[in-house]
Amino acid sequence: MDAAVIGGGSWGSALALHLGRLHIKTNLWIREKEIFKELLKTRQNKRFLPGYCFPPEIDFSADIRDTASSAGIVFIAVPSGFCRPLYRKIAPVMRKDQIVVSLTKGIEAASLMRMTEVMAEVFPARSLPRLAVLSGPSFAREVAAKHPTAVVIACSEGEPARTVQGLISNIHFRAYTSSDVAGVELAGALKNVIAVACGISDALRFGPNTRAALITRGLAEITRLGLRLGAKKETFLGLAGIGDLALTCTARLSRNYRVGYELGKGHPLAGALAGTRMVAEGVTTTVSVRNLARREGVEMPISAEVYRVLYEKKNPRRSLGDLMLRRLKDE
Amino acid sequence: MDAAVIGGGSWGSALALHLGRLHIKTNLWIREKEIFKELLKTRQNKRFLPGYCFPPEIDFSADIRDTASSAGIVFIAVPSGFCRPLYRKIAPVMRKDQIVVSLTKGIEAASLMRMTEVMAEVFPARSLPRLAVLSGPSFAREVAAKHPTAVVIACSEGEPARTVQGLISNIHFRAYTSSDVAGVELAGALKNVIAVACGISDALRFGPNTRAALITRGLAEITRLGLRLGAKKETFLGLAGIGDLALTCTARLSRNYRVGYELGKGHPLAGALAGTRMVAEGVTTTVSVRNLARREGVEMPISAEVYRVLYEKKNPRRSLGDLMLRRLKDE
Repeated sequence: MDAAVIGGGSWGSALALHLGRLHIKTNLWIREKEIFKELLKTRQNKRFLPGYCFPPEIDFSADIRDTASSAGIVFIAVPSGFCRPLYRKIAPVMRKDQIVVSLTKGIEAASLMRMTEVMAEVFPARSLPRLAVLSGPSFAREVAAKHPTAVVIACSEGEPARTVQGLISNIHFRAYTSSDVAGVELAGALKNVIAVACGISDALRFGPNTRAALITRGLAEITRLGLRLGAKKETFLGLAGIGDLALTCTARLSRNYRVGYELGKGHPLAGALAGTRMVAEGVTTTVSVRNLARREGVEMPISAEVYRVLYEKKNPRRSLGDLMLRRLKDE
Repeated sequence: MDAAVIGGGSWGSALALHLGRLHIKTNLWIREKEIFKELLKTRQNKRFLPGYCFPPEIDFSADIRDTASSAGIVFIAVPSGFCRPLYRKIAPVMRKDQIVVSLTKGIEAASLMRMTEVMAEVFPARSLPRLAVLSGPSFAREVAAKHPTAVVIACSEGEPARTVQGLISNIHFRAYTSSDVAGVELAGALKNVIAVACGISDALRFGPNTRAALITRGLAEITRLGLRLGAKKETFLGLAGIGDLALTCTARLSRNYRVGYELGKGHPLAGALAGTRMVAEGVTTTVSVRNLARREGVEMPISAEVYRVLYEKKNPRRSLGDLMLRRLKDE
């Protein structure tokens, strides 16, 4: 089966590279004209995935509808802020027999919807493809370097998930299946807020005990919210949950961690964002989480403190102190 | 209430230091004569907790029965291999009104029993103290440095857990309570085997994706075994579970991680152990886990590979490869 990848950022590029290595004919759509031209000339994406040359199985495209309709499996790897207009653009050409796999780890800010919910709203019902999600601890550069990586593919039906699983798995890249679409999407998005908190803590030189506490109590609060939104607890215990959380919170490669780190060093949000050319989803997800937590009546103390540091200029050290001084309780 | 700490290793020393800072009168028992003499002279434990001076609230003792009977709360921080003979020594002086808190993160090799199970067997029933466990992501040096740390105290009765919680909590050190004694003990012990696996992976330069996959799938398999042994799933999602796992698997301070790292570099077990003066519980726990998994019929692929690398000289790279090639499945 052929594949298409929409989005030439680091993750879209790394996935296309992986598919090409598996000898799967793949169309890669790139929004940025400069990168597109460079790819045609050099077969390299020096900006987002330096050091790798795409194999001949990969074709590059600047026509998004062409790309979206070209393959049985379409992976979409664009930041959440760009998703709805992009889905609208491809909606007329999508087909029932396709599988669309979302790689986006975010929540739509205005609607507080997950990406597959936005798809189901935007794509016409009569031609709605099977919708799936791919998530888990998978830094793009690590996948490109063939370092062993495990991910999860969620779909409400078993067969499309197994199709994608069979297509993309090899000795370097192991895909597990799941039926919990909501859980996999929510875990992937919500964990970015906790990653910001861990970056702040590390910048304050609070060390590994503190980070481990933030990871654990962070997992507890994002699981609470996830359960209220229909996710399964097991998902938060899995690759999209604790796996991605442990990755994002402990590795400097994470954009969200780095935003937190800059904030912890006392740089304002604008400066923290300027330090990274990539989109840090956690910054907008923090607002979405605040709104979701309020709507659902879920207590999320760590996310609330991240919000205060990000948007209310609260002193990061005081924020962490306030977390430690909360009423003692059961785990 | 007064406290006693049995064991002058890094964790026992750091806890005694913390108790002293809280102005709790504490007796610290130290097995090693040299360290005892040094403590009397300098009030420092240069070998296991360099850079810190014990406050005047701490008394040092070389008489273990004296120490064990001196306080209402007795913390025991010795490696699992020394526990049974030590429990036997103090058994005659223990009292019903005491709370004994185990800090040991291991399983008795011969009996495959948890530490509080060994206590319940060794201490006379008529004078059996309330038995509790303290665990969670808590590197000794980080606690000594007053870096924010969260731990869990488990006891089958609520009141002793809350007593210990109230005694030891402050702004740097936050204790949660739990009723799942088995879960907290098992999580603390089993996670060390996964930490060895992560050390191996890092030594092979497999990077953060691989480590995150090992943490996640490792958590899944130790949870499976824990559930069979009567633990609660929530505990593995908590501080003693994922919290301690994330800590131990990502920080060079961990002895078990370091043993794995040396093995991954091709050094045999004896050499790996010689590199650390402290006891790496994971090395013996790996054998216990193998025996428990067989007895209970639980599949534990990562732990099984760690066993093969540790005790059957299997090539570490082949071990990780074999994990990636297992049959594809649901998460």
